[in-house]
Parts: sequence; structure tokens; C-alpha cells
Amino acid sequence: MPIYTDLNTSERILMGPGPSMVRPRVLRAMAQPLVGHLDPQFLELMAEIQELLRYVLQTQNQLTIPISGTGSASMEAALCNFIEPGDEVVIGVNGYFGERLCDMAARYGATVRRLEKPWGAVFSPNEIEAELKKKTAKLVALVHGETSTGAMQPMEGMAEVAHRYGSLLLIDCVTSLGGVPVKIDEWGVDIAYSGAQKCLSCPPGISPLTVNDHARDILRQRKTKVANWYLDLTMVEKYWGSERTYHHTAPISMNYALREALRLIYEEGLEARFVRHRYHAELLWAGLEDLGFTMHVPLEHRLPPLTTPHFPAGLDELTIRRRLLAEYNLEIAGGLGQLGGQVWRVGLMGYSSCLENVTLFLAALKSLMK
Amino acid sequence: MPIYTDLNTSERILMGPGPSMVRPRVLRAMAQPLVGHLDPQFLELMAEIQELLRYVLQTQNQLTIPISGTGSASMEAALCNFIEPGDEVVIGVNGYFGERLCDMAARYGATVRRLEKPWGAVFSPNEIEAELKKKTAKLVALVHGETSTGAMQPMEGMAEVAHRYGSLLLIDCVTSLGGVPVKIDEWGVDIAYSGAQKCLSCPPGISPLTVNDHARDILRQRKTKVANWYLDLTMVEKYWGSERTYHHTAPISMNYALREALRLIYEEGLEARFVRHRYHAELLWAGLEDLGFTMHVPLEHRLPPLTTPHFPAGLDELTIRRRLLAEYNLEIAGGLGQLGGQVWRVGLMGYSSCLENVTLFLAALKSLMK
Repeated sequence: MPIYTDLNTSERILMGPGPSMVRPRVLRAMAQPLVGHLDPQFLELMAEIQELLRYVLQTQNQLTIPISGTGSASMEAALCNFIEPGDEVVIGVNGYFGERLCDMAARYGATVRRLEKPWGAVFSPNEIEAELKKKTAKLVALVHGETSTGAMQPMEGMAEVAHRYGSLLLIDCVTSLGGVPVKIDEWGVDIAYSGAQKCLSCPPGISPLTVNDHARDILRQRKTKVANWYLDLTMVEKYWGSERTYHHTAPISMNYALREALRLIYEEGLEARFVRHRYHAELLWAGLEDLGFTMHVPLEHRLPPLTTPHFPAGLDELTIRRRLLAEYNLEIAGGLGQLGGQVWRVGLMGYSSCLENVTLFLAALKSLMK
Repeated sequence: MPIYTDLNTSERILMGPGPSMVRPRVLRAMAQPLVGHLDPQFLELMAEIQELLRYVLQTQNQLTIPISGTGSASMEAALCNFIEPGDEVVIGVNGYFGERLCDMAARYGATVRRLEKPWGAVFSPNEIEAELKKKTAKLVALVHGETSTGAMQPMEGMAEVAHRYGSLLLIDCVTSLGGVPVKIDEWGVDIAYSGAQKCLSCPPGISPLTVNDHARDILRQRKTKVANWYLDLTMVEKYWGSERTYHHTAPISMNYALREALRLIYEEGLEARFVRHRYHAELLWAGLEDLGFTMHVPLEHRLPPLTTPHFPAGLDELTIRRRLLAEYNLEIAGGLGQLGGQVWRVGLMGYSSCLENVTLFLAALKSLMK
């Protein structure tokens, strides 16, 4: 019979596109003994988690909850609850996660209209308007922080255009939330989702979702049942609302972790956190440029939490990545999709965004490039 | 601004229908710092988790994996991958989770044929055969351990009947796996799912699924895309298979916890574990009968991990449940669905199934009934 040893993974320095490093305080909170999912003590925690999520998302939306799955589950929840078969949906495709939105939306019967741009570029409100002018759509979906390209989509003016043509505005802020400003209410975003394991520095397995009252009305006016049971907000909202009706067993420990990760953000303050992410990102960009890398995304639209550098000529990128992990215990990632082999993805997210990580990475890289 | 204190939940004695108590070893493993979801160290752990799941499920099925969500997500994965619109599905409905299977299956376009029995009763192979004789079906779904009724469905002869009529056999073993024998291969079950937070004593948020080669062939012959992205096994199996293709970020910490929980089962041994569950359940049943309770399910079909006692006349069940929690820190649950107000649900699952828990519960109950 095989022998299974004690868990003995290395303490990695996580500088890929997520998971980011998790502060010991969050790990300790996660390891607190469990209470039941209808325990009065847990119901109190749920209310606190909702408040803290509203703080981080800068929203007053009542329906602001953690979805019981990783960021992709939250993405699917954001789509499946608002799409009915035949609905027209406009999706900005300028990276891997725009593609994923198209795939998911089509599975729920949407007529998907792809608005394409090169990977790394961003959309202007005029481009969205031009598409909606041709034909209206129920929903416009944009990726705020594209983990595959390192681009940050400006949101100014987007909701105004979407709403003028009667569309809901949905955004993906998986890689941006907690690292750069995400102003759900000020921007007029109707539906947004994120992940835990990026700038929130919580382990993956739970993911924020927020829905404003207008989108909630549209959910309530559906003619068909939501075509996904686990993510059906008409039921999930009753567990997170005053009814407390059992739907599925909440992932208790993940909720403990999320609460602690959010509490850390609350203690640090959003503004200080954004400055920290920006500061370390700028150090990284300057250091990489010194070593002959060029950034894929122009400075204007560059996403501080995730950098996508092109390699200097002749660099054996795969060997360097492997040696960073094997010799320095440091993880970065290769490119995804059409940027595979073209760029790295270097994350400075949440707890991973610190001076020692940037400094070690640049020093190790310099040494390996000799 | 509100103040958020340190997490300070009580150390509950969990004797409800799940989550069950989690051994500190599992909590410690879960709190290990994270590695990335494509880290070579994590890929090794994934292989071990699959081996251990096969051990617990008593199967050789290659496609044996943890789904990145709670048991209901695994239930949905078990259905949505095998149902295409218009497929005929026969579902045994003798409790709350049979109802849930019907709800989910219908969302994926199945023509659902409900085979109904009173809550707490079980089905015979002849009853399944009579239904299939009328008209064949693609899939027959049965709940092995009904968490709402405390009944255990005998599985002998079920696969033989289902297969004779060309149906796949799917079972729910959420509350049975790890507490009573679940013999996937010997029984001839094609698809089965479970939960983590019952007899496996792992925190909720991850859930076992196993699919045999025959069902896998049917998955591969689908004419339509799986109508659920997050749970689409045609993609998920490539991450858990040799390709290691990224699908969604695995919940790293939950996988750490699951591995440790499974390792504990492997160390204890399945047979010893089943004897332990049965032994403490019998003590519970005898003690409850002494106090005037009657068991909802006849001994022959009673599920040791979850007991559903009817109250003695005049018992104020709600007050007693509340006092058990407030004064003894001990959680049990009320009835669910049509058994609401009729029975309690008292769990002795996994780590919760121990002499001190049964003894304390019976003594506390006796004291509160005075």
C-alpha cells in the first residue's frame, strides 16, 4: 500500500497571476474550527463579509455576496442569472477572459456579439456606442483587469453609453479588485464579479459578486428559470438575505478566510493599498526595462497588479522560469492564449506586492540572465 | 467606521447534517501556505488526492476528482455533463435531495420522470425496472444516503436493472461516503458524487465526483456543449489528466484539507471507520428510544451517519435545539422539507462520530427534557 506523507509543500514566493501570497493571519482564520452554515454566529459573519465586500467594491448594493467557487464560478453567476435564451450580449474581447465570457454566455443561449481588439488594447465608450447603435443588447460585458494581457480598461463613460442604449453593464474585476480603484457605484456598473486569490490575497475557492437593484429587477422579471442551479441568485439571495433559506452549504472556512482578507484591506485602507500596488509595480517596470524587457501594455493602460513583459532577444524564458522556481522558490507564469511564449505574467498582488519580492525577483532574474 | 474584531466563533460540537467536526490535523494542513495551481508540487498532490478518492469510493475510475464547490456543485456536475436537452431521466424522489436532482436535471433540458415514495422509504430494483419497462431512460438517479430522511438506499441489483435497459446509474453518496460502504465498482455505479463536510470531515467547499469509462464515453459523444462552463468535465478532466490544461484556478487550500481528511480515512481503514460509525449510531438510537423518541426509518434501512428521530409527545423541539446550542455548544438540526417540525437530524459523521459526543448529547438532552 502506498504511503502518504505529511503535507510538505514549499513556502513559495507567489508572483504569478494568482494565487497570490496569503498572510498568515488569513490562514489562521481559515483554520478556525467550523460552525454550522445556519449557526447564529455564522449569520453574523455573513453580514460582516457583505459589509466588507461593499467597502472594497465601493458600492451600496444590497446583493453583494461571495459565490461558493473560484472566480470563474462568479463569472458564470454574473452571466447565467441575467441571460435568457436569445438575448443579445455584447462582449469586449481583448484577451483570454473576454473569450471565456463569450464561451459562457453562448452556453446560456445568448446571441454573442464579439467586439474585438488586439490583446492588450482597451475599448473606448465610442466603440461600445457604435456597436449598440447598430443594434441594442441586453448586456455589455467588459474585462476591467485582463489577467492575460495586463491591460486595465478605463471605465469612465462606459455605463452612460450602455444605459443610454438600455444595456446592463457587467465588468470582470478579478485581477483589479483590491489592487486598483474599482468604483462600482460611481462608475454605474450593474453587475461585477471578482476572485479571491488575486489582490484580495485570500485563498481561491470563493469569489465576490455584486448586483445593483436595476439588474436585480431584471433577474426577478426572468421568464425562464436560471439555467444553473448552484449559481441561481434567486435562491442564493434568500440565504444571504433576511430569509436565511438553506440553498447549499456555504464553504465555512473559505468565508472565514475571506472575512480576514477583507478585514486586512479595511485596516490598510483602499487608498494606501492602491498606492502600494502602484509603487511596487513601477519599481518592477523600471527594473525589467533596465534588463532589456519591454512592457506589452502602454503605461497609460497598464495594470499595476499584473505585468506582461516581452523578453529581450535570445532569452530562454522557459529555463529562467523553471530556475526561478527551483532555485529561488519564486513563481511567475508564462503567457496565456495567443500571448503564450510572447510574454511573462508577473504578479504583484495583495500580500505579494512588497519591496522584498520585487527586489528579489529583479536580482534573481539579473543573475539568471548572466 | 465599524470595527471588525478578530474571528471569535465558538468551538461547536457539530452533530447536525453537516458540516461535521474537522480534525485539527486537517485544519492545519488547510492553513499551509499556498503553492500555485500549476506548481509541480501541487500536481503531485492532485495525483495523491485522486488515488485517495479512489480508495474511499472503492473504484478504479480514472476520472475521479474533487469538484471545486460544495456537494451541490458536484451533484450538478454529475447531471449537467450527461444530460442533453430532451434526454429522459428517471429520478427516485424519496426525500429533499431527490427533489433537488429533479430541479437540476430539468434545468438542463431533461424530461424528468419522478419515481416517488414516501420520505424515508427506499426503492427496490423491481420498481426501477417497472419504470424502465414502460420507457427507457438515459439515466437513473438514486440517493444512496438521504440527508433529509436518514434512509439508506440498498444498491444491490440496481445497476444490473439500469444497464439492462440501457441507462446510466447515478448515485448521490453525499452523506454516506466515508461512513458506510460505498462500493462504486462492485455495485456497477456509473456516476457518483459526494460532499466533503459529512463523513469525510473536511470543510465544505470541495466535493468528490467519480465517472466510469462508460459514462465518460457518453460524455465524449455529446452532440451539444455541456450547458455549464465551470462544471464542464470535458475541460476539467484535462486539468486533472495528463494535459494539465488550465481551466479554473483550483481551490488550493481546500485541496490541502481534502488530502489530509482522506489520508486520515486511509490511516483508519474503511472497515474500521464503518464499524465506528455503526457503533456510535446504535448507541444514539438506543439512547433516544430510552428517552421516548422513535426513529423515522426502520432499522433495516437506517443510515448510521444521520438519524431522524420523531419527538415524544409534547416536546418543545425548537427550545431544546436552541438550548443545546446556547448552553452545551452543541448543534443538531431540525427537519428539512416535509419533515420540518416532524423530526430532528442528528449527525454522527466522520470526526463527530465518537463516544464523547453521543454521551454528551444524550445526557444534555435528558437534562433538558426534565
